[in-house]
Amino acid sequence: MQLSSATHMLAAARAEAERLGVVVCVSIVDAAGYPVVFLRMDGVALGCIDVCHKKARTAALFHMDSAAFGQVACPGGGAYSLEQTNGGMTSFGGGLVIRDEGGVVIGGIGVSGARTEDDIAIGRVAVAALS
Amino acid sequence: MQLSSATHMLAAARAEAERLGVVVCVSIVDAAGYPVVFLRMDGVALGCIDVCHKKARTAALFHMDSAAFGQVACPGGGAYSLEQTNGGMTSFGGGLVIRDEGGVVIGGIGVSGARTEDDIAIGRVAVAALS
Amino acid sequence: MQLSSATHMLAAARAEAERLGVVVCVSIVDAAGYPVVFLRMDGVALGCIDVCHKKARTAALFHMDSAAFGQVACPGGGAYSLEQTNGGMTSFGGGLVIRDEGGVVIGGIGVSGARTEDDIAIGRVAVAALS
Amino acid sequence: MQLSSATHMLAAARAEAERLGVVVCVSIVDAAGYPVVFLRMDGVALGCIDVCHKKARTAALFHMDSAAFGQVACPGGGAYSLEQTNGGMTSFGGGLVIRDEGGVVIGGIGVSGARTEDDIAIGRVAVAALS
Repeated sequence: MQLSSATHMLAAARAEAERLGVVVCVSIVDAAGYPVVFLRMDGVALGCIDVCHKKARTAALFHMDSAAFGQVACPGGGAYSLEQTNGGMTSFGGGLVIRDEGGVVIGGIGVSGARTEDDIAIGRVAVAALS
Repeated sequence: MQLSSATHMLAAARAEAERLGVVVCVSIVDAAGYPVVFLRMDGVALGCIDVCHKKARTAALFHMDSAAFGQVACPGGGAYSLEQTNGGMTSFGGGLVIRDEGGVVIGGIGVSGARTEDDIAIGRVAVAALS
Repeated sequence: MQLSSATHMLAAARAEAERLGVVVCVSIVDAAGYPVVFLRMDGVALGCIDVCHKKARTAALFHMDSAAFGQVACPGGGAYSLEQTNGGMTSFGGGLVIRDEGGVVIGGIGVSGARTEDDIAIGRVAVAALS
Repeated sequence: MQLSSATHMLAAARAEAERLGVVVCVSIVDAAGYPVVFLRMDGVALGCIDVCHKKARTAALFHMDSAAFGQVACPGGGAYSLEQTNGGMTSFGGGLVIRDEGGVVIGGIGVSGARTEDDIAIGRVAVAALS
């Protein structure tokens, strides 16, 4: 994940949040789960910072959006306890996989602070901005 | 969160616990989740100390009472795994948001040691004492 | 450690800090290192919260003031690495042992936020107030 | 710490790093040590990410640049073991306090990845850009 790509996606996420009239924090990590860029909009509940990091890491480390991850990594879901690995993963939406044009995972983005549907929508806009 | 406000709320919580004939520990944190005041009444089970801190932090960091937080941060609740962020949050009652007269979150209070209903009632009396 | 004793010492510590014109946070723990009371004066650097807890715990868990503990628990001091046990102990002044009239350790007090000499002085006044 | 201020400082830090021909990561946190913005330039050693966060937190939580903090928080420095509080603080340069025009601490910036002198120089340029 190049800084230029991450910066471009981050700007797209922020613009979409402003368009929706919500405040969020956004973390973009590389394929190994290490942060590349992060920002927190004014007024976001502070607990969301850790959440957006964990969403991004979940997507990067398991090659799955966090919403899909949450379908299996939950009580009764077939991989219960998976969410407790790797320092804590996220079992609901807002973390999205980032792939290059060849389909290779190059990172993850996590959005937190708004309703889960909005967090996901913001992440989708950011990922789409890469191509 | 000023110390004078926190001290006033703490005294109100303690008085209410004594009126109810229960023993509790009470933590009041600022908007960033840092402790301002704490007390433990004689005879409280020691495990409740960490619980009351986490309740207070949950309310402050997510701008939600811990009872409401627990409605979503639980298996099947829509945000399962959220309770495992930020060093561990609390998914049951006894943590309450503290707001100033303008509605801005200035901290959280956590009460633990009695039945959950009593913990909540004590927290409410403390929060009401601020205004 | 009774809450009434801890509250009395805490008030003495706060009064002494005000007399000296400094701001501090103060933690009082029982003989097992569990918090009994805590307060943070307005304006204390937030990093001092963890420091005062660790000072109080150091005194309670090793039956030594943290200044004396620091003489041995340091590089070249004869017990180097001891400061890294128990979740992190404190190797400088401001943590004091609290004993009952029979000399039995009943807890510890930690003061942080001012110069180390003042932190120690405030702790001494608090301990003296118990008798 | 407003996002607009943090974004402005972050851009200044990045520009200075490019001018010096070095790569770094930069974290800016609020007065409570919570991240506001972060970026990692391409090619920075991954271990530096945690370092820059800890530098920024050290400055914010103790109201001291990390270089000054390291003068006391070290073996023989008078506050040895202080560096092991608050989840790990940093005892060398590259973390700088951010104050508003009235001198109040509003956050901290941490720079890591280049030589310590360059990390510090980059941080200074960023802080100067705020005024």
